[in-house]
Amino acid sequence: MQLITLTTDFGTKDWFVGAMKGVILRINPRVTVVDVTHEIPSGDIRAGAFALMASCRFFPKGSVHVAVVDPGVGSARKAVAVQTANYFFVGPDNGVLSFALAGEKVKAVHRLENKYFFLWEVSHTFHGRDIFAPVAAHLSRRMSIQKLGPPAKNYAKLRWPAPKQTDRVIQGEIIYLDHFGNAITTLPNHLLTRVDGTRSLSIGRKTLCPIKAFYQSVPKRKPAAVPGSAGFLEIAVNGGSAVKVLRLKVGDPVTMTVR
Amino acid sequence: MQLITLTTDFGTKDWFVGAMKGVILRINPRVTVVDVTHEIPSGDIRAGAFALMASCRFFPKGSVHVAVVDPGVGSARKAVAVQTANYFFVGPDNGVLSFALAGEKVKAVHRLENKYFFLWEVSHTFHGRDIFAPVAAHLSRRMSIQKLGPPAKNYAKLRWPAPKQTDRVIQGEIIYLDHFGNAITTLPNHLLTRVDGTRSLSIGRKTLCPIKAFYQSVPKRKPAAVPGSAGFLEIAVNGGSAVKVLRLKVGDPVTMTVR
Amino acid sequence: MQLITLTTDFGTKDWFVGAMKGVILRINPRVTVVDVTHEIPSGDIRAGAFALMASCRFFPKGSVHVAVVDPGVGSARKAVAVQTANYFFVGPDNGVLSFALAGEKVKAVHRLENKYFFLWEVSHTFHGRDIFAPVAAHLSRRMSIQKLGPPAKNYAKLRWPAPKQTDRVIQGEIIYLDHFGNAITTLPNHLLTRVDGTRSLSIGRKTLCPIKAFYQSVPKRKPAAVPGSAGFLEIAVNGGSAVKVLRLKVGDPVTMTVR
Repeated sequence: MQLITLTTDFGTKDWFVGAMKGVILRINPRVTVVDVTHEIPSGDIRAGAFALMASCRFFPKGSVHVAVVDPGVGSARKAVAVQTANYFFVGPDNGVLSFALAGEKVKAVHRLENKYFFLWEVSHTFHGRDIFAPVAAHLSRRMSIQKLGPPAKNYAKLRWPAPKQTDRVIQGEIIYLDHFGNAITTLPNHLLTRVDGTRSLSIGRKTLCPIKAFYQSVPKRKPAAVPGSAGFLEIAVNGGSAVKVLRLKVGDPVTMTVR
Repeated sequence: MQLITLTTDFGTKDWFVGAMKGVILRINPRVTVVDVTHEIPSGDIRAGAFALMASCRFFPKGSVHVAVVDPGVGSARKAVAVQTANYFFVGPDNGVLSFALAGEKVKAVHRLENKYFFLWEVSHTFHGRDIFAPVAAHLSRRMSIQKLGPPAKNYAKLRWPAPKQTDRVIQGEIIYLDHFGNAITTLPNHLLTRVDGTRSLSIGRKTLCPIKAFYQSVPKRKPAAVPGSAGFLEIAVNGGSAVKVLRLKVGDPVTMTVR
Repeated sequence: MQLITLTTDFGTKDWFVGAMKGVILRINPRVTVVDVTHEIPSGDIRAGAFALMASCRFFPKGSVHVAVVDPGVGSARKAVAVQTANYFFVGPDNGVLSFALAGEKVKAVHRLENKYFFLWEVSHTFHGRDIFAPVAAHLSRRMSIQKLGPPAKNYAKLRWPAPKQTDRVIQGEIIYLDHFGNAITTLPNHLLTRVDGTRSLSIGRKTLCPIKAFYQSVPKRKPAAVPGSAGFLEIAVNGGSAVKVLRLKVGDPVTMTVR
């Protein structure tokens, strides 16, 4: 099984993703390419990192995950490939890979410096097509990661806003807003099984949400916090958009209280 | 040929569809996965049912069609797989499969209850990834549908708003609005060949449309009703959006008059 | 390697592209289908022609490129297949193929008239599914282009707005606006290497842009013209949308001045 996944902020209105796939299929005609998403908000490295983290572990072992949210393209920022116990990861070394890598056993980190594995001509504005696509295609053919460039001690890491627990109160924040208008928090689902007692979730100082098992556990248009499919509590409104109804945004503080 | 199609309201801005494909390809690395659409309006079961009906018959025999528009995910609603003379259909048992199944010869209906064919852990919010994707992948490998769970007598059906014919007048309604702003009606194209005489289409009480063969049969910005590619008369505006110009919405009544 | 690319204005909200892929895979189950984009603005033949030109050369030799931006579908406009030294191109004969073909060595042009290679029933509104998809699938199986219909002397060409050079001034225009809000001009990147001296780009009569190597060469929110990945100078704003900040549109004149 040879599989490459793509997570980018390139959008789908132009030919950018198509050109990446063309470059990949020239090098490895047998590979399957899967779009994770191309609608990461422009330059939002953290949203890209979250999407990659939430999806990567569902793919077959050996898959090559490419993530390109790259506002510094063409500047001095480095490019990197990382081999873990399960996967390869390829992208700009700006933190976009770091949430996913935190859940993986890292085996090797290499800078992308060997131009032999780049496109015939490298632009200053589209390394997705010119560097990351061909490098991923070569890795999907089982080329050794060592050939791509010198080893690196580490890779850039984004700060993960870890929840703070004090006795009966756990504080987190909203980290991602999805298509349905659900707001994903940094509070892991497993808090629910570890903590006994009656729990509720408050957002900022006002809204109080019951914690429920699924969306339709509350009446239409009412909010609930449910254990989400990415492994974190998420705030939803039954039959509506929590983001709109409750005016939520990334970074909003959330507090789980246990009585 | 092993092929799975996906019709959902998951949108394309997150990792949801990518994660489904990862789950599928872990189970069947050789399958081809085709997106029908992921932009069914959130929770609009009828729009999903229409899109599936309009597209399913163009795929190779033996394809597995997955449709997930599932506002009741996690609640008591059942999940179902249906085998027909030509295809398999998989989804929540809320009617989303019913328009497509009305055109098929149904062979077997089974509830999805055998957890052996689900993902290792099933969330309450994302059965697309945790139940429907793995079940479809197993069916695409020619696993018997009987293994999925107990047989069911029937599947949930949405009401199809059938046209009413009285002498020289046929009444229908608008059932789907497409990307171009064309409004698809419930009046089948074959009415045009069955009924002799001069025909015109009126929308509500006001607009009168000529019935033409193609969009450019009328001047720019003028409306026409044309036999549409989904098998139903559709209302279009040459070079524009009928939905915007004529302010159309789903459910609006249309009347074909023959003189 | 059997590969078909699709460039259309069909959008992704309906089943149109899915139905095309179903038709293709019925005829050639082994082909890989790659979406270039389906979000060409409705009926904007020139934008479709530009997207196809910018992407086609990155695909493997022998690929079949399908482009359907087709406001005249069902009318008297012809349909065409073109064989070049590297690729096949299929689409309505309205100019949508012409920018890409200008960079190719054309070997044969044939009208699509042999109904044997069309879908079982051809609608007047969806030749993408009924004519172009099956024809492309047959070509991807190495069927001879001669079988599709009579040879044609030529194919429809859109006017390419070539830059005008007078001494130290080169005049072009904006030809495409991308997802990031970058405005692609008709001034080829190679002008920068051919012309010595200090250069700057002005848009209309007002904005003056420095010409730089990459987006982050200028401070945040400041504009720059950079050599773009499609081979043309593009106007960008670091960390923002040049289209919005500078209120750019297709057709706006740009002037490169060399001192």
